[in-house]
Amino acid sequence: MEEIIPISWENETLHILDQTKLPANEVVLKLTNYEEVIEAIQSLRVRGAPAIGVAAGYGMALAAKNIAGKPDFMNLFEQAAEEMIAARPTAVNLSWAVKQMVELCKKIDDLSTAAEVILEEAMNIHHRDEAINKQMGDIGKEVLADVSSVLTHCNTGALATSGYGTAFGVIRAGIESGMEFSVFNTETRPFYQGSRLTSWEFKKLGVDSTLVVDSAAGSLMSQGKIGCVVTGADRIAANGDSANKIGTYSLAVLAKENGLPFYIVAPTSTIDMSLESGLEIEIEYRDEQEITHHSGKIIAPEGITALNPSFDVTPARYITGIITEKAICRPPYTDSIAGIMRD
Amino acid sequence: MEEIIPISWENETLHILDQTKLPANEVVLKLTNYEEVIEAIQSLRVRGAPAIGVAAGYGMALAAKNIAGKPDFMNLFEQAAEEMIAARPTAVNLSWAVKQMVELCKKIDDLSTAAEVILEEAMNIHHRDEAINKQMGDIGKEVLADVSSVLTHCNTGALATSGYGTAFGVIRAGIESGMEFSVFNTETRPFYQGSRLTSWEFKKLGVDSTLVVDSAAGSLMSQGKIGCVVTGADRIAANGDSANKIGTYSLAVLAKENGLPFYIVAPTSTIDMSLESGLEIEIEYRDEQEITHHSGKIIAPEGITALNPSFDVTPARYITGIITEKAICRPPYTDSIAGIMRD
Repeated sequence: MEEIIPISWENETLHILDQTKLPANEVVLKLTNYEEVIEAIQSLRVRGAPAIGVAAGYGMALAAKNIAGKPDFMNLFEQAAEEMIAARPTAVNLSWAVKQMVELCKKIDDLSTAAEVILEEAMNIHHRDEAINKQMGDIGKEVLADVSSVLTHCNTGALATSGYGTAFGVIRAGIESGMEFSVFNTETRPFYQGSRLTSWEFKKLGVDSTLVVDSAAGSLMSQGKIGCVVTGADRIAANGDSANKIGTYSLAVLAKENGLPFYIVAPTSTIDMSLESGLEIEIEYRDEQEITHHSGKIIAPEGITALNPSFDVTPARYITGIITEKAICRPPYTDSIAGIMRD
Repeated sequence: MEEIIPISWENETLHILDQTKLPANEVVLKLTNYEEVIEAIQSLRVRGAPAIGVAAGYGMALAAKNIAGKPDFMNLFEQAAEEMIAARPTAVNLSWAVKQMVELCKKIDDLSTAAEVILEEAMNIHHRDEAINKQMGDIGKEVLADVSSVLTHCNTGALATSGYGTAFGVIRAGIESGMEFSVFNTETRPFYQGSRLTSWEFKKLGVDSTLVVDSAAGSLMSQGKIGCVVTGADRIAANGDSANKIGTYSLAVLAKENGLPFYIVAPTSTIDMSLESGLEIEIEYRDEQEITHHSGKIIAPEGITALNPSFDVTPARYITGIITEKAICRPPYTDSIAGIMRD
């Protein structure tokens, strides 16, 4: 079994497996400045809330290295931080990692060591995330103990994280511990993270997964073919409302209507305690061309209007549990989330 | 405003606007035998329950012409009928039209006139369907009188019928009678009938419609951006359970969860009184490549499994009303449908 390495730091360079080229080609990008990291995040070459947090951390390390020695270091660093945070608005992991770097930098007495300190912290975030994923898998797999099949959405595997995965990691942990269930995954329009990335990861792991279009998931549930739904999240409010890839809300409603458990799997770094509810989560709208074009060719009529929200918000009432690296939070979420965030 | 002519009979030839080439190219196919009609139906060059009923009618007229004068005419005709019915299993309009032709043929005394009689009946079906569409629009538009926006799925416009449309026709009738509401349509994976065909038809009519991916519809509903959902149907059981394009069930559940009316629009020829419930409706599964490939190029990893149900069944309890050319049926459907089918 071949492990997927989506992000690595080698020879003072950030290596990123370009996810826009998958599954046809495995192209590794070697990024040497933070502007290249911003471009990679905006173009979805690296994507998935935890992965863009890790990439942004290394991006800030590159920024610190690029501006090392300049008299206005702190100003330039904060400017780079602002640009990095603006790359994508919905996933909190990005701003979480970048803000952590800025706070750290402010505490450094000798700025000539800043590049080194920031890089060390980026590596910490990276390796912590990998460990956290395995913990989530370990804690979360129990929810799959008695199901005959599981459905997941978008990509939450190694590619979306530092390795292993969030919702994908829970499925993987279940399989690795000998549980027997069948696996379904949606293709996840418009960017096909499901068919291009999740199907590719399952195949690499030797797991048989059945691919369906997003709109077929509900029908499978109504026919009794799905036992449980697990997805990731890009930002979770203090009350448990969760923003995730467009279509997640629909899956949660359909699961509830069919009496099926619906779980979110995300590290505590995805929880944004500054937001009371999901109403406050900023949703990213991406280019219409993701819908109207395919491989650069137009597939819809010229000049029509398309609306391309990248995420939606699932109200907490549809969520059976939120699996984190600390514990599985259960309703009422305001209490259970506050509990783990205090620990 | 340019009317769309999806099907016409000219110079003893069936002309079909090839829907697989839209929106980029308007290619008219000239079909001269029933095998070509079967191929066009199977390859979705002509699609939409009413349209394939009409095309099948002309296909049987071509069959009758091709075998005219042969001693075993009736056997050959019934064999052609069987092949035609097998072209696609879910839409009842196809078998309805073909069976009608066989019954008619059996009653003809002088089989030398059969080709002529069958053609006349095909033309009747064709022109009746167009009139029926306008009636459905006229009857159905009242459901849009007080909504600020409407969402539709797949393609149910002129292309899916003899002209005007079913669910699309209700939207069109509302707009033509001066109602003001905004219009959303899904792209409808995997075949993109929404983005390729419905968006094209709205654009031809000068109607602004906003295209979204299928999985975004639920989120729009939860944000209060949708006031009503209308879709077509491919087969309706006696209890009101309705088979339609994959994803329809999900839209109906999401509409109910958000307190929105959900209407099916279909001619009475789509109602199959021989089926007690939707459980008996045969669902067509199409080639996996519709999901894993795009324009002949693979977009998913080689060798994975995909499941491609073309339709799903929406239980009657999610349906606010079924708009037919005779009346709007309301729950309990067993009574209201029996009522209009008796008339």
